[in-house]
Amino acid sequence: MTESRATAEAVVAALGARGLTLAVAESLTGGLVMGALTEVPGASVVFRGGPVVYATDTKASVLDVDPVLLEARGPVDPDVADAMARSVRRRWRADVGLATTGVAGPSRQSGKPVGEVYVGVADAAGTVVHRVDLAAAGDRSAIRREAVELALAAVLERLGLAGEVSVG
Amino acid sequence: MTESRATAEAVVAALGARGLTLAVAESLTGGLVMGALTEVPGASVVFRGGPVVYATDTKASVLDVDPVLLEARGPVDPDVADAMARSVRRRWRADVGLATTGVAGPSRQSGKPVGEVYVGVADAAGTVVHRVDLAAAGDRSAIRREAVELALAAVLERLGLAGEVSVG
Repeated sequence: MTESRATAEAVVAALGARGLTLAVAESLTGGLVMGALTEVPGASVVFRGGPVVYATDTKASVLDVDPVLLEARGPVDPDVADAMARSVRRRWRADVGLATTGVAGPSRQSGKPVGEVYVGVADAAGTVVHRVDLAAAGDRSAIRREAVELALAAVLERLGLAGEVSVG
Repeated sequence: MTESRATAEAVVAALGARGLTLAVAESLTGGLVMGALTEVPGASVVFRGGPVVYATDTKASVLDVDPVLLEARGPVDPDVADAMARSVRRRWRADVGLATTGVAGPSRQSGKPVGEVYVGVADAAGTVVHRVDLAAAGDRSAIRREAVELALAAVLERLGLAGEVSVG
């Protein structure tokens, strides 16, 4: 997780400076975004927690993603990322909600290619969803690590820091 | 996460061979147990997901840990680990529930010393809670990594594999 450490520290510091809290809903990253955030001492001041909704049905049962949407388009979809981010913000009573969904590989999933990733960031003003193609990042492990970095960067961007969410 | 990779692969293989599913509730490990499990290709066959209940109040609101217990003894407690494991198994509809709670440091928490860690494993037969002292493992990061390894080993032990949960 060392490559995400600096970004995670920046997220914790930025949220702390603004008095904001964060909750996270993870699919393809499977806990690594929250793992990176909680590596930072004092993360508990800003980080509330959140669910790893790995099985598709848990996106509906644990968060409030529409089962019809999940059935029609599958879990790797911008509207699913949007719903996950909004739901985790509300259900976990945080100021900012962050969500990841995508295909880490090694195989295609629900008709979507390896490397297709969506990151959603929700706050009181609404939700921003980033679509990124991480196929060039490498294997399953590399795609997940890059998705963690992008998810953390998306929070910084939403807070008005660190220019853009770039594709690695 | 490389040190946990082999253990995570063994957990996924053992659950798969038995046709069992797993859900995980994490506190001090903050997502790293689930991050290790989902690093394994094909983990979705056995791994359903689970919550990182980092803020103490989320252990009551997202799982079913008794708020009176949390208030009286704090989140680092064997009965809290027991309740977390049972609750995540039931709420996330898995055959096996795994839970971690403890003090990663750098400071004491709720009167408990750095390195005091509880791991709970719940299945249809009941719950086993392991108490381990990881103070000698090193800093916050090392304590968390060791706790991840112990949590995964506790599942293997519960499945009748891999002798014992040893303290590193």
